[in-house]
Amino acid sequence: MSFINPLSGIIPPLVTPLKDNETLDIESLERLIEHLIQGGVSALFILGTTGEAQSLSYRLRQQVIQETCRINRGRLPILACISDTSMEESINLARFASNCGASAVVSAPPYYFATSQPELTTFYEELIPQLPLPLFLYNMPTHVKVNFEPATIHRIAQNPKVVGFKDSSANAVYFQSVMHVMKERPDFSMLVGTEETTAQCVLMGAHGGINGGANLFPELYVAMYQAAKNGNLSEVLRLQPLIMQISASIYKVGQYGSSYLKGLKCALSVLGIINDDFVASPFYKFHAPEREKIRQALEKLPFENGKLIF
Amino acid sequence: MSFINPLSGIIPPLVTPLKDNETLDIESLERLIEHLIQGGVSALFILGTTGEAQSLSYRLRQQVIQETCRINRGRLPILACISDTSMEESINLARFASNCGASAVVSAPPYYFATSQPELTTFYEELIPQLPLPLFLYNMPTHVKVNFEPATIHRIAQNPKVVGFKDSSANAVYFQSVMHVMKERPDFSMLVGTEETTAQCVLMGAHGGINGGANLFPELYVAMYQAAKNGNLSEVLRLQPLIMQISASIYKVGQYGSSYLKGLKCALSVLGIINDDFVASPFYKFHAPEREKIRQALEKLPFENGKLIF
Amino acid sequence: MSFINPLSGIIPPLVTPLKDNETLDIESLERLIEHLIQGGVSALFILGTTGEAQSLSYRLRQQVIQETCRINRGRLPILACISDTSMEESINLARFASNCGASAVVSAPPYYFATSQPELTTFYEELIPQLPLPLFLYNMPTHVKVNFEPATIHRIAQNPKVVGFKDSSANAVYFQSVMHVMKERPDFSMLVGTEETTAQCVLMGAHGGINGGANLFPELYVAMYQAAKNGNLSEVLRLQPLIMQISASIYKVGQYGSSYLKGLKCALSVLGIINDDFVASPFYKFHAPEREKIRQALEKLPFENGKLIF
Amino acid sequence: MSFINPLSGIIPPLVTPLKDNETLDIESLERLIEHLIQGGVSALFILGTTGEAQSLSYRLRQQVIQETCRINRGRLPILACISDTSMEESINLARFASNCGASAVVSAPPYYFATSQPELTTFYEELIPQLPLPLFLYNMPTHVKVNFEPATIHRIAQNPKVVGFKDSSANAVYFQSVMHVMKERPDFSMLVGTEETTAQCVLMGAHGGINGGANLFPELYVAMYQAAKNGNLSEVLRLQPLIMQISASIYKVGQYGSSYLKGLKCALSVLGIINDDFVASPFYKFHAPEREKIRQALEKLPFENGKLIF
Repeated sequence: MSFINPLSGIIPPLVTPLKDNETLDIESLERLIEHLIQGGVSALFILGTTGEAQSLSYRLRQQVIQETCRINRGRLPILACISDTSMEESINLARFASNCGASAVVSAPPYYFATSQPELTTFYEELIPQLPLPLFLYNMPTHVKVNFEPATIHRIAQNPKVVGFKDSSANAVYFQSVMHVMKERPDFSMLVGTEETTAQCVLMGAHGGINGGANLFPELYVAMYQAAKNGNLSEVLRLQPLIMQISASIYKVGQYGSSYLKGLKCALSVLGIINDDFVASPFYKFHAPEREKIRQALEKLPFENGKLIF
Repeated sequence: MSFINPLSGIIPPLVTPLKDNETLDIESLERLIEHLIQGGVSALFILGTTGEAQSLSYRLRQQVIQETCRINRGRLPILACISDTSMEESINLARFASNCGASAVVSAPPYYFATSQPELTTFYEELIPQLPLPLFLYNMPTHVKVNFEPATIHRIAQNPKVVGFKDSSANAVYFQSVMHVMKERPDFSMLVGTEETTAQCVLMGAHGGINGGANLFPELYVAMYQAAKNGNLSEVLRLQPLIMQISASIYKVGQYGSSYLKGLKCALSVLGIINDDFVASPFYKFHAPEREKIRQALEKLPFENGKLIF
Repeated sequence: MSFINPLSGIIPPLVTPLKDNETLDIESLERLIEHLIQGGVSALFILGTTGEAQSLSYRLRQQVIQETCRINRGRLPILACISDTSMEESINLARFASNCGASAVVSAPPYYFATSQPELTTFYEELIPQLPLPLFLYNMPTHVKVNFEPATIHRIAQNPKVVGFKDSSANAVYFQSVMHVMKERPDFSMLVGTEETTAQCVLMGAHGGINGGANLFPELYVAMYQAAKNGNLSEVLRLQPLIMQISASIYKVGQYGSSYLKGLKCALSVLGIINDDFVASPFYKFHAPEREKIRQALEKLPFENGKLIF
Repeated sequence: MSFINPLSGIIPPLVTPLKDNETLDIESLERLIEHLIQGGVSALFILGTTGEAQSLSYRLRQQVIQETCRINRGRLPILACISDTSMEESINLARFASNCGASAVVSAPPYYFATSQPELTTFYEELIPQLPLPLFLYNMPTHVKVNFEPATIHRIAQNPKVVGFKDSSANAVYFQSVMHVMKERPDFSMLVGTEETTAQCVLMGAHGGINGGANLFPELYVAMYQAAKNGNLSEVLRLQPLIMQISASIYKVGQYGSSYLKGLKCALSVLGIINDDFVASPFYKFHAPEREKIRQALEKLPFENGKLIF
């Protein structure tokens, strides 16, 4: 299914429900996708960082694409992340996604060797013609060790197949700089990876958010997006504390960099949206004490009849 | 002179006009301060990163405080930055600033040894009682190698002498997290170091910006602050491209980390606000080719009768 | 073929000769392997960082293993690197290598998500029982963003299948710390990734070097290893300047982090050891000016009748 | 007092014995200096990282210089570290040191602003003519955020007042690269900051070590230096485990980057070499549990009649 440029709204980066390192929990994936579609999201983003793609085998990554497309039944555009250290494997995954019916692919820079900006440009100029689908660039410097400089994005995006950009750097000056350099391309979708700052970026002209928390409470992030898009500042300021409470209490349990992922999956399982919070190697799910903290954090949220009230 | 908490508005981090490494250009400082006061700024912030404090001798740092206070004649609150690797030298400078009539001091963490959060907390719990003035905490991780974690700020700020926080990290998620943890303290001033993101932060509840560009065009940043404070989104979106143009064309000439400082001082001298753009060691001012680029960048800005029109 | 613990001597990390991103240059690989075996190396290390494994498709990685084992004809132990972000893909490659006749596998930590030490320990404690071959741990912090702490190595190596450690951190204090913590395991092979420091590490008790330069001049690095192993200090000091000259003149052409890899492959092609210096995406081979610099650097080395004389 | 170039042997970086943040413990300093001179060290290095210079006021830094020179009575060359963010303060301290009778000064790059290599070169080309004493360059990248590139050292050292280099990077490839680029200057002193690797560097041609552990056991590090200088490999290998044991058990207690400094001062006070292990802000000395660990670590060392036996 095609989508209207620029792609906008809330696009959840789906967690990958797992039974073990190599077994997709299809039932949970079905429940999650229905939950998201009912929650009003604009598209589904699979196999991103939140989806643990790099921890999964290629067989399993393909299965995630296939099952998501099957369950979705064409209701929403599907964006499949194809980030890889090998260009060939990226292309293979893009072709598979295209055959399954995905709408676009997303790619962060190769993440083993750190590349210079000219090397990065060359990589994408070689990759893009071989892709059967439109491409979103994905900035994720903490994981891939390199930033797309704004000028690099501008250059790569001269190819019209490049239709958008997702930034997970959290660096607001950087995001403004990319917006500035791309300002002549109103069709180019500017998406924010961090839910804590999606509202302010949309207020400043961004098109939407790829927000992990939308796995849990899609309505909340969609409401926040709508408020920001409509310039309803008081509504934005009313919703922001709840979004920050979720961030502070669900994503910061445990002392490692993996606490976001573990906390998000744990909360999803506590809420019954997924059956189990199994996290693929090299991570592992929370033990009982951390799970209890997540349970308590959820209890402090304003629920009514099992629904978040805001 | 005292000020009303929370301190708000645009507070320019003054450049330090120099004749050479050890000679303050007092005439330029006078002109700069009048320019800023006429431009509508809320306070003057001296000896920060933009003021090159660490490159100056202590004698010169004291002179900057003394002359600024003299020229200011009590018209605006003065914030003097006392960041140092030695607690004793920080206290010495704070006392000197207090005697000269400064209103508050600002401190970034010690920047030689990288400290843990408990060490950072202890440092400030020992420092604060010895300060004769209210304190703003200053987050500047690229230069000092350590971030104030939100919980650390919350703990240090239990002392009511801690009246505000300036963040130069550019990390918008971080800034939101500090806002969230300090939300019970409406008197606590939340200030943004990066002018590219001041508007969006003020929209979200921040109190103002310590914006280097305000040395050049104070009216512009004050107008942006007012628009954001008033929730005038269309005005914010009208002004933001000009602020980004200044950032992209004045601060990015040259290939080093020092390009912001060199570009800002160069532009100030091209505009005649300061006589010379001498930059203290370990940096040096732009050579002719870079100066020409700054001149051209300024020419592309919308001037009329020597005034920036917006 | 099995090997004697601790594995010692010079073990070249083979470059992967390519015709293009997806075509192995088998003729060059044959020539390279004969060159190395004649040069007196102790084992062959394939699919490491120098072998560009992460840039290659899995099909191609398997072909490298298969062809190397075929060409080798059991003459030397083969170490196949299985580093991956997915445990399942690591295991798949290890099984393939075992079936082809490789002697051991080598693994650096997963390189997308940065892991804590407990997560790293758990990863290897889960991986190791599933491996059909002995394992060398591989420390490569610049690429994988995490160091094996000495205590982590000690813990993981309690499983006797863990037979050695390769360090490419260049941090000599770190290497000494690992040597110290492993000192009760005389059978545990301590190997150095950086050829510039292999001699000094062997003098201090290390077992050998996984030295990229040995692709070019295996005899030189083998001679250096022998001198160090025999405690022949004057010979070590005689050879070290030549090793440093190669490092300084072949690996530092160009301004990017990729200069080592490009320079090494370029020099191999200038010397006729491989046909072409094609470097897989995201990198690309040197253009003519850099190639000329490599040619000149080679000319300054002490050759006689096409052989390096030392 | 002058010294013979290249300066060689063990040069302890003296801790600064303190009663509180601003009070030098002169009695302890006297005892420490006599302990070091009797221990056979070659020179005294004051106000380095181990000496906590950056945490001390300038008044106190001057007192450390003055008292050290007084106590030394011309018996050993004194090297005073003048690292500062301000060139003028560096020069002031160098003049003071010269007037007190110090033999040379040592300087790490300015540590607030990170400099490019050309900026770093310019800084030193401006500083050096204003120094009344010979200069050692000091590489300390973890603290100052910038490395002296080998070519930068080569360029700065064209001024004959630059007589040596201390490297605390622990990067052995880097150290070899500096040795290589400076190989035409046999009078240029190459000194190693990390005691764990001093022996191997001296084996490879370095001139000595600026080893913190020499505060505790100067004879041990002097013996190691002599063994390495004489090419006595078996003696080096006999002593290295003891040096590693000290490193592993004294410097790694506590979980922060400050554990080296706290552990060293704590051990010195347990041994009675200094009266108190007060550490200046922003750090603080160990509490009882960590002190007990240090005491136990010392007990495991081979003492006889209060002397370390090796």
